[in-house]
Amino acid sequence: MSSSNVNIENALQKYLAHYDEHYGILMEAMAYSVGAGGKRVRPMLTLEFAKLCGASQAQALPFACAVEFIHTYSLIHDDLPCMDDDEMRRGKPSNHIVYGEDTALLAGDALQSLAFEAMLCDETLSAVSPALAAKAAYALAECCGARGMVGGQVIDLQYENKKADETTINKMHLLKTGALIKAACLMGVIIAGADSQKQAAAAEYAECIGLAFQLVDDVLDVTSTTDQLGKPVNSDLDNNKSTLVSLFGVEECLSRAKALTDKAISALSAFEGDTSTLRDLALKLLNRKN
Amino acid sequence: MSSSNVNIENALQKYLAHYDEHYGILMEAMAYSVGAGGKRVRPMLTLEFAKLCGASQAQALPFACAVEFIHTYSLIHDDLPCMDDDEMRRGKPSNHIVYGEDTALLAGDALQSLAFEAMLCDETLSAVSPALAAKAAYALAECCGARGMVGGQVIDLQYENKKADETTINKMHLLKTGALIKAACLMGVIIAGADSQKQAAAAEYAECIGLAFQLVDDVLDVTSTTDQLGKPVNSDLDNNKSTLVSLFGVEECLSRAKALTDKAISALSAFEGDTSTLRDLALKLLNRKN
Repeated sequence: MSSSNVNIENALQKYLAHYDEHYGILMEAMAYSVGAGGKRVRPMLTLEFAKLCGASQAQALPFACAVEFIHTYSLIHDDLPCMDDDEMRRGKPSNHIVYGEDTALLAGDALQSLAFEAMLCDETLSAVSPALAAKAAYALAECCGARGMVGGQVIDLQYENKKADETTINKMHLLKTGALIKAACLMGVIIAGADSQKQAAAAEYAECIGLAFQLVDDVLDVTSTTDQLGKPVNSDLDNNKSTLVSLFGVEECLSRAKALTDKAISALSAFEGDTSTLRDLALKLLNRKN
Repeated sequence: MSSSNVNIENALQKYLAHYDEHYGILMEAMAYSVGAGGKRVRPMLTLEFAKLCGASQAQALPFACAVEFIHTYSLIHDDLPCMDDDEMRRGKPSNHIVYGEDTALLAGDALQSLAFEAMLCDETLSAVSPALAAKAAYALAECCGARGMVGGQVIDLQYENKKADETTINKMHLLKTGALIKAACLMGVIIAGADSQKQAAAAEYAECIGLAFQLVDDVLDVTSTTDQLGKPVNSDLDNNKSTLVSLFGVEECLSRAKALTDKAISALSAFEGDTSTLRDLALKLLNRKN
């Protein structure tokens, strides 16, 4: 684990350390899903863009934690029976399996609030200026709300059992997974006080890696079925749901993912510092095998 | 309807006006519950305290809307089958009855984000200073999260079927309903840049009217059953749940509600301006019959 990752884990835990005899179970439920890991791609993006624009890791950590809290709340709510009804998440029982649906729902709700507490508490406002903290928090609110992540989830619901065209699928991905990645990158740039040109470059990088990620995801869903004796392993293939692969085929999707990754890497030229970590991350997401 | 109320309704609608062909149903679901009304007590409190401390209504409205968005999201999530499973809310079908559980869940999630968008957008930051807007938004985040409203909801869940003592019930009420009332009052004072003494007075007023409100609620739940041919109309009476009335009886509860209302009114002496609206509101909540 890199030192950045250790710092992210410690910072995440710090915000969840406030136990209470009466509602301790809520904090436990929140910590359960936050601690269940994942690759912490979003907080890493916040820290990397912050560093690139001259903000310190200490300044960036509250925002890195905030985006991970939002991501975690969305996973808890996504797994609920009224949504995807998933009993497992990252190899562990889902939050509602362990804590019950009611507490899981509330743990998700409280994680969204905690994201804003982290970004707007006195400690953060004195480390970053209130103006920059407020702008970054606004970017996250916009990207995770109705015109961002949640909007994308609703598009996904609406096309659950009917064919969607390319524009709709792209918009769904841009919002459902892309918007939070965009917020992660943008917040790093914003809290460093970097200009709108750099913000635009960070947004372009984010959108490109987000769409490329989704294309590779769709391809892996199909290619991973070949050794499954013909039975599709991905639930999206069980119904009429359109994917980019069903529209364009594997080869075209991989070619588009590669072009988007190139475009993401080009966008990094707007920054003067060492962008190798962000370039490598884009390539790693493109070339992953699972 | 007072002119303040008209302004609140218009401001609430303004934030929900952004329709989109793809996720328009989400905005419709959000607007359905926000528009379902209620007395708008929380936004009125924000406007009144702001006025008392010298902020304009235009400055206060984003914060007034934010607290109402949070209140509305909590009602939508409360009504879900995994929570209270209520099919009706304020005489209309609950959000999930009209839009489905999945969209209702997401509409609640997006309303929480919208609260922070309203408080932290460029327009609000230039009307109020970023420092004051960030402080007010933090107060709301803290009051609606794990150490506030959601924490209180979890205490409520934990004592669903077992006896709670006075301390636990009071803490539950202080958090579950009191915290958001406190945020409403505090935000008005904070955005006007008023000192910590006035913030403390607003918090005291809020806590007192919140607890008094709950005492009267518990009393009305019991007294309203007398004409129901002996069948309890309140679900709290159907199980073993402790209420303040079950612990102390009707008379003691009314006496405590009166004392708390007096204390709330006394707290208003910390303000120089005309506090009659806030005094009348406290008395109206005490003397209501439903």
